Amino acid sequence: MTIKVSIIGCTGYVGEELIRLALTHPHIEITHLVSKSFAGQMLSEVYPNFGKAFDKKLEALDTEVIANDSDVVFTALPHGVSAKISAELSERGVKVIDLSGDFRYDDVSVYEAWYKVEHQAKNFNDIAVYGMCELYTEQIAKAELVANPGCYTTGAILPVYPLLKADIINPEGIIIDAKSGVSGAGRKESLALSFSETHESFKAYGLATHRHTSEIEQELSKAAGQDIIVSFTPHLLPIKRGILETIYATLKDGVTREDIITAYACYDEKPFVHVMEKGLPEIKHVAGSNSIKIGFAIDQRLNRLIVVSALDNLVKGAGGQAIQNMNVMFGLKETEGLTPVGLYL
Amino acid sequence: MTIKVSIIGCTGYVGEELIRLALTHPHIEITHLVSKSFAGQMLSEVYPNFGKAFDKKLEALDTEVIANDSDVVFTALPHGVSAKISAELSERGVKVIDLSGDFRYDDVSVYEAWYKVEHQAKNFNDIAVYGMCELYTEQIAKAELVANPGCYTTGAILPVYPLLKADIINPEGIIIDAKSGVSGAGRKESLALSFSETHESFKAYGLATHRHTSEIEQELSKAAGQDIIVSFTPHLLPIKRGILETIYATLKDGVTREDIITAYACYDEKPFVHVMEKGLPEIKHVAGSNSIKIGFAIDQRLNRLIVVSALDNLVKGAGGQAIQNMNVMFGLKETEGLTPVGLYL
Amino acid sequence: MTIKVSIIGCTGYVGEELIRLALTHPHIEITHLVSKSFAGQMLSEVYPNFGKAFDKKLEALDTEVIANDSDVVFTALPHGVSAKISAELSERGVKVIDLSGDFRYDDVSVYEAWYKVEHQAKNFNDIAVYGMCELYTEQIAKAELVANPGCYTTGAILPVYPLLKADIINPEGIIIDAKSGVSGAGRKESLALSFSETHESFKAYGLATHRHTSEIEQELSKAAGQDIIVSFTPHLLPIKRGILETIYATLKDGVTREDIITAYACYDEKPFVHVMEKGLPEIKHVAGSNSIKIGFAIDQRLNRLIVVSALDNLVKGAGGQAIQNMNVMFGLKETEGLTPVGLYL
Amino acid sequence: MTIKVSIIGCTGYVGEELIRLALTHPHIEITHLVSKSFAGQMLSEVYPNFGKAFDKKLEALDTEVIANDSDVVFTALPHGVSAKISAELSERGVKVIDLSGDFRYDDVSVYEAWYKVEHQAKNFNDIAVYGMCELYTEQIAKAELVANPGCYTTGAILPVYPLLKADIINPEGIIIDAKSGVSGAGRKESLALSFSETHESFKAYGLATHRHTSEIEQELSKAAGQDIIVSFTPHLLPIKRGILETIYATLKDGVTREDIITAYACYDEKPFVHVMEKGLPEIKHVAGSNSIKIGFAIDQRLNRLIVVSALDNLVKGAGGQAIQNMNVMFGLKETEGLTPVGLYL
Repeated sequence: MTIKVSIIGCTGYVGEELIRLALTHPHIEITHLVSKSFAGQMLSEVYPNFGKAFDKKLEALDTEVIANDSDVVFTALPHGVSAKISAELSERGVKVIDLSGDFRYDDVSVYEAWYKVEHQAKNFNDIAVYGMCELYTEQIAKAELVANPGCYTTGAILPVYPLLKADIINPEGIIIDAKSGVSGAGRKESLALSFSETHESFKAYGLATHRHTSEIEQELSKAAGQDIIVSFTPHLLPIKRGILETIYATLKDGVTREDIITAYACYDEKPFVHVMEKGLPEIKHVAGSNSIKIGFAIDQRLNRLIVVSALDNLVKGAGGQAIQNMNVMFGLKETEGLTPVGLYL
Repeated sequence: MTIKVSIIGCTGYVGEELIRLALTHPHIEITHLVSKSFAGQMLSEVYPNFGKAFDKKLEALDTEVIANDSDVVFTALPHGVSAKISAELSERGVKVIDLSGDFRYDDVSVYEAWYKVEHQAKNFNDIAVYGMCELYTEQIAKAELVANPGCYTTGAILPVYPLLKADIINPEGIIIDAKSGVSGAGRKESLALSFSETHESFKAYGLATHRHTSEIEQELSKAAGQDIIVSFTPHLLPIKRGILETIYATLKDGVTREDIITAYACYDEKPFVHVMEKGLPEIKHVAGSNSIKIGFAIDQRLNRLIVVSALDNLVKGAGGQAIQNMNVMFGLKETEGLTPVGLYL
Repeated sequence: MTIKVSIIGCTGYVGEELIRLALTHPHIEITHLVSKSFAGQMLSEVYPNFGKAFDKKLEALDTEVIANDSDVVFTALPHGVSAKISAELSERGVKVIDLSGDFRYDDVSVYEAWYKVEHQAKNFNDIAVYGMCELYTEQIAKAELVANPGCYTTGAILPVYPLLKADIINPEGIIIDAKSGVSGAGRKESLALSFSETHESFKAYGLATHRHTSEIEQELSKAAGQDIIVSFTPHLLPIKRGILETIYATLKDGVTREDIITAYACYDEKPFVHVMEKGLPEIKHVAGSNSIKIGFAIDQRLNRLIVVSALDNLVKGAGGQAIQNMNVMFGLKETEGLTPVGLYL
Repeated sequence: MTIKVSIIGCTGYVGEELIRLALTHPHIEITHLVSKSFAGQMLSEVYPNFGKAFDKKLEALDTEVIANDSDVVFTALPHGVSAKISAELSERGVKVIDLSGDFRYDDVSVYEAWYKVEHQAKNFNDIAVYGMCELYTEQIAKAELVANPGCYTTGAILPVYPLLKADIINPEGIIIDAKSGVSGAGRKESLALSFSETHESFKAYGLATHRHTSEIEQELSKAAGQDIIVSFTPHLLPIKRGILETIYATLKDGVTREDIITAYACYDEKPFVHVMEKGLPEIKHVAGSNSIKIGFAIDQRLNRLIVVSALDNLVKGAGGQAIQNMNVMFGLKETEGLTPVGLYL
């Protein structure tokens, strides 16, 4: 089986990661690589890491050509821009996996409030499926348009969802202290992202205003069956790839360590979610892999649960999860072309 | 005025930082450098950064010689070991600044419970003054034995103390998510601290069990006038020096941004505490300096206050604060020999 | 086709990398993992990155059991120790790929002079083939015992060999200024390799005495048809993986840019050697891949050639090259299970 | 004694470092801070590290005001731009220390050939003194206009000058393999200097074409009494501050280790040049200090000398050396306000 894949926005870091992952996928043939900034150049001029192993001319966007020549298209574009292009492709009958925030919201008005733009393809929002594979496998299998989740949100939703579903933590007072590597901010000329400004330093940003807050709240509210408001604080780690999130929640009375493990049993058959019964995850355990690892401890004095999750923002938090969604959409094994083993070094 | 200074445990990272700071202090003469591991060698063999500018033979410990030949002794030793030596020196009539955890507790039994050792000099605990300069200036000025605060604790106590004192945050539910550079773990052969295991990675550790929790609670309880229990989670940042702490607390009803600024006005005349009315502190703002910077934001949806503090664990969190204590003990200007300006690069 | 593989010394960084690579190789089944330090524990206790994807009990060494139950054994052991074990396994009839320096030398006395130990299996030295795949494919295809090349040496031999063979550079005066990431020093408790001692720093070491000098000289002498002595200076880069080498040589009179490209044409069909006609290689282009990239410039004022090579010390410089050797020994495609595409991020 | 100092171009990294150093100098009063990009803003808005300790409004350039109100002006501007402004200030009678490349050349045509611009103040070139303090103390003491040396050039000239002067190395075939931290590239929005593109990577650049080559050659030619051509290859280290250079030269026949030490005795009384008789310099030994450290080894097989130098590009390679020049120009102790002790951490 060969799946013809095109990638739009292929020269951002997520696009590059998608190409890299696609090349080792046994069923993918890359048909078009689209880059607005570098159209006409060869991929290897922008990313010499592909070297002599793989090269292809970067194209300007022509949705007709691409739709005709692809089984699925990944759009790795800025929000706002993405909706229109994904909708146009979807209209032409090709499956689309959109890696922006544009189709992640059940309610377009929540999107518009947090992203502060008007949604560019409202009539397509209803057919979009939220691509958190471990939660929505069946819907994804039938989807024509998948909204790939955000990186921070994956690291928050997967660990907290089962706890709320099992009704073992208090839905109020959840705090998510998140730390991400710099690649999460994308590929751009920026003083704030320069080496000299970020190395040997560390900072918090976007306090109480980061967009991913709303995406996390949407999914956790479903789990809890009530509206959830969380505190979400992102920080910028001086590393290239990886996210670690430290999550604080109050346990309901009488909840034991065993109850937590039971709640997490929902992930037992999920190849990319590893709940550690001993120890805590570190970013090196997941870097370069499509895995998310989850560890936890209970502060007995406060009856507070502390959950730590780690994932690679470019893989499980973006390109890898997109491939995983593709696998599900095309009836392949979920793990095809993806490694669950972190680089460690 | 010349103050004769000896440093015991001078080849750990805190000891080295003390020597470095002492060399640019206008009133310090270093009389003895004691190192158990390197006695007999020259300082420059262990730390070539001192190069041809300064060198001195490292000595084995002889408390009599040192007490006779010093106005003040800094002990930068492991807890447990430190108490006995500091007490012996104090008994010989020399002023002592102890950088271990041994004399930081009002109640020896709290120390013993958290450090899991028996205190080695209980009868000296009462004369020890907790050396948080901004809170206890008068007591420090008269002290013979000062217990220099911990690095994490400085970054938690200074930002939270005034908020509790002003009764504007809820004393329950305080969460301190702390991130420290690797030098905080000291100078040692350790796989977990090796470059290959820590670079491009990040982890939490010591969940719900870190000793500094109890030191933070002691001081915050005094501020609140009631027993405080906090959640404290340390993390290991892939940087050499610096700590950033993100602190979550619930505001009392009706508390405004202005109330917070008013509470922090207690630091207006404190040269090393910088409360930022705009922006947030980053580690590069304080690295290499004796400053702690504090910024904050209010999450209106939750009436939650998020405070961020940053300091250099080796300076304000250890050696610099020790020099600051010495300045106060000897009637010098608090800022003598210390820079409030971070390295940025 | 399934190849039964055992790895001895599997908990060092090279061993870990071998396991990681083996898991995505379509023809490998791992039968035994041997670790002296961790025998009896599970792999995932030492390396949680394998997580729930793969686990296996670590064993003590039993060469009989292993030889009976393996088609090929990788020994990733310290030099000196390795020779004996590899020889014993080879004697039992199993193919061996030895990743130490023990069997890399045509002349045992050169080995003994540079490694300052007595060779422990001299009578096996003659059957060992030097596993630089791009130079010795045919010999490797028939070999029973392969000596996998060193990391620094791969980055020096592959770029310089064709230039000497083509007789376009002066065999005298070759200077190799090499820079390696810290993982090259292996997994160990060591102050010099600790994060605090290596981060934000850089140093040269082993001037004029590093063992890899002799291995480079052996191979370059064959290319030149005369004895070659090189200057080789290793440096320690504050990165986890990757080597970059800057090589200086004087061009013979009249040699042009075209001549250099012609000399390098020997690599045209080699999938893992990428000679760049434009630009220079960077470590991020090859990290995580089995590729070596080679770029160059001519300093016209001096008629001097400057060649820059980059590779991943753990992959092309160790585990990946070992797998490549295995592929050749078993008649598989050279690229099986190995990616030529660097991580970039 | 109070010296009134103005800094033009104060918001680049060198400018910021000059302010930082000026603040701890006992004889400096900062009168004007000029920034084209940030005029009208407060310094602390651009560099919060100055915090509450020091602040000042950033001004647009008015050479008349500045000349009237300064004893010395530091110009930390791009080459090309700098010459005209420095000349104008010099014409108004104020002492100037120019940190650009504009006045470093005896021969304006060499400058124009390597910098590929026309010199903007040729008639001032003759009064400019090359500010390498250890070589030209007397001329600097009398100078009105000092050209502060480049960072790479300081790390090459100081170690090689005495060897050529003493006639113990071959003036041909000198190779300088230099590695610099990212701050050397200045403060700018640049993809190539972004964290994601430089961290965990390493590269060479500017092969055979870097401008500093010509500055090194000018000074070494004076030492040798003949024209010197060197190979100079810069590399980009993933660190913020620091330069290490590895220099290869052939020893003249019969030259011994003692001869080298004798040649370097010229630095015995120089407080910031540390020739190490044992060991090699590392960047952590000099970071944050105004010292340059020099170590060396002899490769007996090749009669080749390998010299390693380390310095902080922002201090001894820029702002610190500028302050040192000021000290000499104003008859102060050369070491005033400068530390020779590296940060280590």
